[in-house]
Parts: sequence; C-alpha cells; structure tokens
Amino acid sequence: MSAAARYGDPAATLGVVNDVLSLQLAHRSVRKFGSREVTDDELTALIAAAQSAPTSSNLQPWSVVAVRDPERKARLAALAGNQAFIEQAPLFLVWVADLGRARRLAERAGAEVAAADYLETTIIGFVDTALAAQNAVVAAESLGLGSVFVGAIRNRPEQVAAELGLPPHAVATFGLAVGAPDPTEHAGIKPRLPQGAVLHREQYDAAAADAHIATYDETLSAYNTRFGPPGSWSNRVLDRLKGPESMAGRHRLRETLERLGLPSR
Amino acid sequence: MSAAARYGDPAATLGVVNDVLSLQLAHRSVRKFGSREVTDDELTALIAAAQSAPTSSNLQPWSVVAVRDPERKARLAALAGNQAFIEQAPLFLVWVADLGRARRLAERAGAEVAAADYLETTIIGFVDTALAAQNAVVAAESLGLGSVFVGAIRNRPEQVAAELGLPPHAVATFGLAVGAPDPTEHAGIKPRLPQGAVLHREQYDAAAADAHIATYDETLSAYNTRFGPPGSWSNRVLDRLKGPESMAGRHRLRETLERLGLPSR
Repeated sequence: MSAAARYGDPAATLGVVNDVLSLQLAHRSVRKFGSREVTDDELTALIAAAQSAPTSSNLQPWSVVAVRDPERKARLAALAGNQAFIEQAPLFLVWVADLGRARRLAERAGAEVAAADYLETTIIGFVDTALAAQNAVVAAESLGLGSVFVGAIRNRPEQVAAELGLPPHAVATFGLAVGAPDPTEHAGIKPRLPQGAVLHREQYDAAAADAHIATYDETLSAYNTRFGPPGSWSNRVLDRLKGPESMAGRHRLRETLERLGLPSR
Repeated sequence: MSAAARYGDPAATLGVVNDVLSLQLAHRSVRKFGSREVTDDELTALIAAAQSAPTSSNLQPWSVVAVRDPERKARLAALAGNQAFIEQAPLFLVWVADLGRARRLAERAGAEVAAADYLETTIIGFVDTALAAQNAVVAAESLGLGSVFVGAIRNRPEQVAAELGLPPHAVATFGLAVGAPDPTEHAGIKPRLPQGAVLHREQYDAAAADAHIATYDETLSAYNTRFGPPGSWSNRVLDRLKGPESMAGRHRLRETLERLGLPSR
C-alpha cells in the first residue's frame, strides 16, 4: 500500500514490510506547520540520531545550528529564496559541513592537514552531513514531526555564514525546517521513478533503465496536476538544469567555498 | 541506555524514545557477515526506502548497482583497498551519483543542461545519493541486516566505472556492504562527540564546542583500546587529514570527476 503511493502505481508492493519501512515510504516534504513547538528533548533526540549515522573514518565533519529566534529565521528565509515556511517552522536546523573543527585541532597541535584542501575532503563533509541529516529526518517523522530540506541556503552562503557566526572552513550545506505537520496542507506523497530506472544488477544498463521514464512522466504529470506546478518529470528536470540562470546564484559555489576555506583542489 | 553507548557516557539519556530512535542509536558498522543471503525482496525494500528520501527538486540524480557475483565483488574489493568484507558480504551496493540520466534526457530532447557543469550540481548528486543510501542503511537494520559504507570505492573511480559499465556523467560515490551480522564479530557501538561539540543554538560557538574534545579524546581512546587501532580522536583525525599521501589516491578526485563527465566549474 505504501509502495503503491511511493511509486504512484497501484500494483507496487513490497515482499517484506515493517514499521520502519512504512515510516520511510510514507515520507513527504512538509511546508506548512502547526503551532506546537518542537521540544528540546525532541531536538536532542534528532541530533543523537544524526550523530548515529555513519561517518567516514569517524571524522564527524559536520555541525548543526538550531535556530528558533523568529527574527533570525526571517533573515535566513530572506537569504534562502524567501520561502515563508522557514519562518513558520518552529525549528530551523542549518546543517554545516565543518572542516573547521579539524583545522582548529591542527592549529592547536601545530600539525598539517593538507588533505583538507582537496575536493575529496569537501565532498566527505557534504556527504557525511547528508547522512546525519537524513537520520534526523527519519527520527523527526518517528516523533510525528515533519520536515523539508532547504537547498536554497546555498544561494548566499557567505551571508548565511555571517548570520550564524560560522568560523572559517565551515559552510551551510542545507537547511531543514522542522515542525508538526499542519493537516490542512494540500500535499501528497510524490511518486518516484520506477525502481527499474535506478536499480541495476551487476552492471549499469542505461537503455533498460531509461525505458521506464515515459511511464514515470505520465505518473508525475498526473500527480503534478493535483499538487504541483504542472509538467512532466523530464520537462521539470530539463528546466531545472537549463543553465546558470536556473541556479539562483549557486553556480558560484566553487569560488564561494574557496573563500569560506573549503577549497576544491 | 542506547544514548549512553552512543556517547560512551553512562549518564547520557534521551527525554523521548521510540523504536525508530533506538534502532538508529544502536547503529554500528558491520564488517563480518553471516552466511544467509539478502533476499531479492529485501533488496527491493532497501531501494524503495532509499527512493523515499528527499531529493533536490525531485531530480533523483542517483542510481545503484547491486553486485552479488563473487568474482565482481572480488575485483571491486581489489579496487577498494583490498577490504575482505566486500567479498564476504552477500550483497554489495555501489551508489552512483548519476547526472547521466538527465544528460541523456537532454540529448534526446535537444536541450541544454549547462547547470550540470557546475560543482553545485555535482554536489547535489553526492548529497542526494547520501540521503538515499542512509535510508537504505536504516531499512537494512530494521530487517536485522548490517552494513558498512566503503568510501575507498573512490580510490580508483575510473576502474570502478569500467567494472560496472557506468555511462558518462556517473561516478561511484561509495559502496555499501550488506548482510546478516556475524555475532562473533568483535565490534562495538563507536561513541560520538558529545552533543555539545556539534549542536549550536542560534549561532556557532567554536570555543564552547571545542571544549568537549578533551573528554571525547579520553572516551574514544578507551574505546579504541578495546576495539580499534589505538589512539585518541584528535590524533586519528590529524593522521587521516595529514596530506595527499593519506588519501589513497582520492586527492585526484576533481580531475577524475572531470574525466568522468562531472565537472566542477
């Protein structure tokens, strides 16, 4: 049943199921929040779940800033594409790829950490932050909360760093608005590509995978008629990736990271 | 109780708890697997969970190759630092940051997707792959399976791409060895940094956060005496980030991505 919604295909089922899988399959982005607070105990639990995610060589190259102050949320919303739900959410978590902690360690020890100059290490920062944040997303849903990621926090990373007082070698990777879902929100579970489009066995088979796209375009067009700006998946992807003008400033990310102290040598 | 293990601190507790949080907090890397297979139904469930994770603008810029063939696993193990558990695991998932699907769409439509030339888009590929893969990690644990990520799949990305028949604009992000944990494995739940070292409120406070590191160094040294190569966290981090020689070839990632068709403009 939950697989049917996930794939927008009444025939889709799973041969194994449990409460955790059902929770994961029922994920949707929440952009309209009820008035109840996210408690400090809940915040602690979300971060403990995040810290439980795997991390490369136990580097733990991330930090998170929990923002509740309405004025700071408003300023961050303005920096991140004026998305009103950021202000409306009781809790806005800004996930930070943070090589600063290791750089400060090195400075105190008088040691070299030249590996941190390479794109590989910056990518470990982003990846490990994502692994952690996804655990927080699932933890939030297990507590009856909802959330939505905010990639637009990368539209103006230097201003976000100043607002949050980030030290050098740290960058806001994405935001996560968290709160109790408002049941009046008009939203659904967005169907994903058929599993055959993303799962390959032994070797990648582009023709077999891409053959699923036409069906998915129909599925998502139907969904978008009800819930989204209209359009097929293919059209939305092409529109989103058209060029630098479709990137809200993020085409400058490499130079910005360099200035923030996360070089991509 | 699970918070105590997670933080290596008998006094650590959570004010809220449920089965999902307990599962997440009990995470550990599994590197020794029992003989039972991972069924196809389980594989389907892991991938459905992965596809349920959030993805930027619904781009779904990832694919996954499920490897069960013993000879292919052996060749991948050789490419990824000769880690024997890759061969031993019944299932090895290679997670692929995949801009190829969108590039092929564009080619068929005669459209431009110049945004895919920028580091921002490559990073979206890595981040969204990580969000998906972490859902698979949690799903696996909910089914009684264990796993470990293999970043060393990035040691030799071109050879891995050839082995898996990856198309242009696709790169193996990390591997995930999956199987039933062998109960005889000598391993524990690795303590993480105290929450105060990573969680900031309203603004980042480096001095307050870093003040927790000395205690953590002691906690992890004690853990490492039992389970790992010895050393404090600080020493391990400095050793890991020393320089290009500590990166097993991954200092070349930027040029390699360029050649694979994931430029970082």
